[in-house]
Amino acid sequence: MAEEKEQKGITVKKADDFSEWYSQLVQKAELADLRYNLKGFVCYMPWAVISIKKMYEKYEKLLEKNGHLPLIMPSLIPESNFHLEASHVEGFTPEVFWVTEAGNGDKFEERLALRPTSETALYKMYSMWIRSYKDLPFKRYQSCQVWRYEGKATRPFFRAREFHWIEAHNVFATEEDARKQILEDMEMTYQMLEQEFSIPIIFFERPQWDKFAGAVSTYAADALTESGKVIQLPSTHLLGTNFSKPFNVKFVDKDASEKYGFITCYGPAISRIYGAMVSILGDDKGMILPFDLAPVQIVIVPILFKGSKEKVLEKCEEAEALLKGMYSVRLDARDDMSAGEKFSEWEMKGVPFRIEIGPKDVDTGVAVVVNRFTKEKKAVDMKQLGRYIDDAARNYTRHLKEKKLLDFSSLIQKCETLDEAKNAIENKKIVCCGFCSVDMEGANCAETIEKDFGAFVRGRKVTDEKNHFSSCIVCGKKAKETVYIAKSY
Amino acid sequence: MAEEKEQKGITVKKADDFSEWYSQLVQKAELADLRYNLKGFVCYMPWAVISIKKMYEKYEKLLEKNGHLPLIMPSLIPESNFHLEASHVEGFTPEVFWVTEAGNGDKFEERLALRPTSETALYKMYSMWIRSYKDLPFKRYQSCQVWRYEGKATRPFFRAREFHWIEAHNVFATEEDARKQILEDMEMTYQMLEQEFSIPIIFFERPQWDKFAGAVSTYAADALTESGKVIQLPSTHLLGTNFSKPFNVKFVDKDASEKYGFITCYGPAISRIYGAMVSILGDDKGMILPFDLAPVQIVIVPILFKGSKEKVLEKCEEAEALLKGMYSVRLDARDDMSAGEKFSEWEMKGVPFRIEIGPKDVDTGVAVVVNRFTKEKKAVDMKQLGRYIDDAARNYTRHLKEKKLLDFSSLIQKCETLDEAKNAIENKKIVCCGFCSVDMEGANCAETIEKDFGAFVRGRKVTDEKNHFSSCIVCGKKAKETVYIAKSY
Repeated sequence: MAEEKEQKGITVKKADDFSEWYSQLVQKAELADLRYNLKGFVCYMPWAVISIKKMYEKYEKLLEKNGHLPLIMPSLIPESNFHLEASHVEGFTPEVFWVTEAGNGDKFEERLALRPTSETALYKMYSMWIRSYKDLPFKRYQSCQVWRYEGKATRPFFRAREFHWIEAHNVFATEEDARKQILEDMEMTYQMLEQEFSIPIIFFERPQWDKFAGAVSTYAADALTESGKVIQLPSTHLLGTNFSKPFNVKFVDKDASEKYGFITCYGPAISRIYGAMVSILGDDKGMILPFDLAPVQIVIVPILFKGSKEKVLEKCEEAEALLKGMYSVRLDARDDMSAGEKFSEWEMKGVPFRIEIGPKDVDTGVAVVVNRFTKEKKAVDMKQLGRYIDDAARNYTRHLKEKKLLDFSSLIQKCETLDEAKNAIENKKIVCCGFCSVDMEGANCAETIEKDFGAFVRGRKVTDEKNHFSSCIVCGKKAKETVYIAKSY
Repeated sequence: MAEEKEQKGITVKKADDFSEWYSQLVQKAELADLRYNLKGFVCYMPWAVISIKKMYEKYEKLLEKNGHLPLIMPSLIPESNFHLEASHVEGFTPEVFWVTEAGNGDKFEERLALRPTSETALYKMYSMWIRSYKDLPFKRYQSCQVWRYEGKATRPFFRAREFHWIEAHNVFATEEDARKQILEDMEMTYQMLEQEFSIPIIFFERPQWDKFAGAVSTYAADALTESGKVIQLPSTHLLGTNFSKPFNVKFVDKDASEKYGFITCYGPAISRIYGAMVSILGDDKGMILPFDLAPVQIVIVPILFKGSKEKVLEKCEEAEALLKGMYSVRLDARDDMSAGEKFSEWEMKGVPFRIEIGPKDVDTGVAVVVNRFTKEKKAVDMKQLGRYIDDAARNYTRHLKEKKLLDFSSLIQKCETLDEAKNAIENKKIVCCGFCSVDMEGANCAETIEKDFGAFVRGRKVTDEKNHFSSCIVCGKKAKETVYIAKSY
């Protein structure tokens, strides 16, 4: 059925048309299917799910190492719970899917929300679970999906009406302890996103006009893409006592007095991080994945000719047997495809190493190893194959990080004037500039940026608290802050 | 606050009042909280979730080893999908939670079901994903939660309106291949439930009047409790072409003709299996868990007296350091509880081994190791502690299985008459007897059993196809089948 085959490769360059490149990648690498018959809902396919499960595993392990225990909460929340915290209900109500009836028409007395996030489910329980200072810090997480009714176009993994995340909700005796948790959350984010997933990020304290509904402050990681647009990734929120008061999350302190707990919550959206990772690491041939996360780490492709098939396949099986104890290995012996077609398919899917073995290689006792990321092609003595792969595997993700984390710095441009900034944004840069304020009084200047540039004030960089500019790039008043401005996906 | 402490142990015997025993166990071992403010929905607490996650991991690994790939499907299903298969919609509609609106009152054109099971979501996609015989067998699974609006009283893990399961959905070219999958599903069930979770089961082919809505045949594992009541555990269904026809799941066969696929689906409900495991293994002191699944495998309790605290704690830390590389170890050095209170708490939670170290033990160089299941108490030379625990850990689950899988056979009683059977059921036995038919013509006799005994015909034992009886225990007609009758939870 070769004549029916569609164009297998991605037909646009990532740098020319990122959106189209991503759509084709998702389809051609078989990551998600958008044909499910409900708007905003997509099917995640095995090649994506295998990596996503590994990402969950790594994240959960780190959360547990840092003292979080796992919970499983109901996914339905009575509407009245939402009404306890005023800005939360206002922020989330437009995004909620409501269950109103069951069976053959039994109506519920109040509407039930499909959780858009779990504060209002959890904190009711926290008020019963937390009694004394001895229960603190109280650190819990759950891995689950959330639903948000949003109108923007669906982009699989990035934006859909159901997505998969982890949410950690913690209670502390003091604001100081809560702020330490925010720092721990940031460290976890760097460790996971940069060290494990090779995604370059900056952590921002978001301006007050862009915080989570009900939070004191919101801190969020922005990932950078080559197009200069950022992708909002995990955010962590200092909720202070904004929720503990209405939800009655109190504890008896050492001095026997009753106090409200200080709450933080952290929400890494694993499905979105996966989308960001695939976007940032991929190239014109398809996916590139960190070695640990690849569903298949090594593919062995026999180069088959009449008369030498048997000896070539035998050598391939030998290589497979050698490597499969340590790695996820696939011997691709399909007989209805050419070797070239197989190369393209596995490059599309981001398999880190391809081993080619042909009849000549059998005679000379070598195998050709091709690195998906560096493109390096190397003839390796079969006797050395195990050791070569061990070394190359160890270095694969390191090389990926070195390259990707470096790309990053060149994207940022310091600007003194609006014209400079506008130019920079048009040239796909991220602007670093002075700003009057990230409190509500700066909202007007931010609006100007949004209207004129189609870009957003991402906030103040958390790791750099000094201010480097004298005046606000918009209104010219004294700059209280150094902020970053970028377009976003 | 010692005066506020409630009675810590379970106040009834498991054999006397299983229901009350289970309720207290769930509360006192902190497995679930039923105080969530929505009927039928419960919070799973960390001690349960840690084990449940391990159970998922084991099950998923086995499914993948057997060729199933993971998917993630949307949890909402348009109502029209349900209407494609008539008996399915009839069976499930009374149990569905319906999303009818979103945000501030946007109504959906059709109701959206919170999935009660995913056939009607998946098979629409399967009709697009499966093209040729080369795509078969097509084996996929997802780990997810499902919702069912049911009226019976909530019993955490066993019965609630939201539960957590795995569902595997497979398509084959022939009915023969589909039936082989049913056998593989049964083998997986035995391997997981009996070998990993120590739950004794029998696999039944369910009578036709008790099959899954839309299935050709349903095969289900029943677990046995000491009370003689059974608990329905994983079931696997031969759907044949009942769904592939309305959902158009077709493939082009080798002879170029188009054929409908034969479908099977398998649904191990992990949360329910957890409930069954905890019920079946526990004793009057609380939980007993297979070694691998225990959140804490070894607890070290120092016996503290004034003047020797330091040296005792030092020895405990030594033991902790020795064991924590291999096992999940907790050193319980809390200073506001007696050693006895700690013993009770960890016994309640089913920690397999307790190590006690007191001042005398430090002097004599021993530690006392107590086995939660066998109750064996042994003074072990500190120098031999590592090796002793390694051995004991290896044997812990084996002993548990030997004991629990044995309990099982004594529960079954062969009966020739209704009086005998009634007696046996009253004596907490499972009845094995002749039955006219497990096709629809046997439904009347089954109804008699249900009315007279409050018990159910569980079906024909799958591994034993011979018939051992001459006449039906109810109507006296020729017995076509040997069936099992039991009460159920």
